[in-house]
Amino acid sequence: MLTNNDRLARQLGFIIEIDRLKGVVRHAPLADGSRRENSAEHSWHLAVMAMVLAEHVDEPLDVARVIRLALVHDIIEIDAGDTFAYDPAGYLDKAEREQRAAERLFGLLPDDQAAEFRGLWDEFETRRTPEARFANALDRLMPLLHNYLNEGGAWRKNGIAPERVRGRMAPVAESSAALGAFALALVADAVERGYITDTPPDAPLPAE
Amino acid sequence: MLTNNDRLARQLGFIIEIDRLKGVVRHAPLADGSRRENSAEHSWHLAVMAMVLAEHVDEPLDVARVIRLALVHDIIEIDAGDTFAYDPAGYLDKAEREQRAAERLFGLLPDDQAAEFRGLWDEFETRRTPEARFANALDRLMPLLHNYLNEGGAWRKNGIAPERVRGRMAPVAESSAALGAFALALVADAVERGYITDTPPDAPLPAE
Repeated sequence: MLTNNDRLARQLGFIIEIDRLKGVVRHAPLADGSRRENSAEHSWHLAVMAMVLAEHVDEPLDVARVIRLALVHDIIEIDAGDTFAYDPAGYLDKAEREQRAAERLFGLLPDDQAAEFRGLWDEFETRRTPEARFANALDRLMPLLHNYLNEGGAWRKNGIAPERVRGRMAPVAESSAALGAFALALVADAVERGYITDTPPDAPLPAE
Repeated sequence: MLTNNDRLARQLGFIIEIDRLKGVVRHAPLADGSRRENSAEHSWHLAVMAMVLAEHVDEPLDVARVIRLALVHDIIEIDAGDTFAYDPAGYLDKAEREQRAAERLFGLLPDDQAAEFRGLWDEFETRRTPEARFANALDRLMPLLHNYLNEGGAWRKNGIAPERVRGRMAPVAESSAALGAFALALVADAVERGYITDTPPDAPLPAE
């Protein structure tokens, strides 16, 4: 693209390609319920959330790295798609789809940057560092907030039972006891309000 | 919100409020032209762009800070709206609208974080640091790419003349000579291809 600097050309190619993350639609609705959010705006929201909530983490961590993890963690969805957190079938070939996606997408960058981005994505996925545990916790908390504010949202639509939501929130406490406790309080309140129930979406309507 | 930790409650209030940035629509179209982009996904794209292109900057800088500037720079648009880069009327009361917005939105945070976010936004606006000059350069380059890829996009729709686009790109070189040169090459090519012309959108059609 109009430059004889090969390195810059590859970088610009990557920057233009990842514009497509704005077209990957997630299951969680926006806070106002007007539409489902996309993975690019979600990644922005997660990064700002990291800036704001980092003080609640119980282990020493580098917030700047958490922000990078948040910015990069969903880029592979451009090829691999968004896998709904409560879809066991989607998880069957998730790892393979995402490995291929990482290879192609990060491979657009110059080699040193491809390795850097690939490393950030691997780190996020394996939760092996304090930074990855916190970024992952935020990635679980954010849809909790969105679904709660929508009186059930994706839980209700897909008939997700309370114990599955609780199970999904369990790792939050590994990063932050305060945020873990908040997540469980929100789930308990959602159950009490009827936002999370055991009724599958295609079950017959209850008799009146 | 279901916590007796006042600090956490304020932080969550801010995180939920800024979800609305996903509803602020900009003038630039997505790279594939399918719709106009919103300011939240734009902020994500800018932050990743900072990670990828930082090596081209001609002055020493802290990339982590550039990323924070990119993440925070548009939050005030939730109240103040997006002002089109080529709209002189919109610029008349822009400063006043944005100051009020910054006060209300960042004021949702605990005082120390409100000051931090306000500081980041001020820094971006005034371009007084290497980090702010680079973030600002990217904020000019990104719509250039988007409008170029859409064969004119917002320029054509609004009859923006070549010298105005060139003027808008001039500060890019203050941060990076390489990126400044690339921007001017792209503008020159856009003019040659007829993506940027002097014809206002409501001018009579030329005789054949």
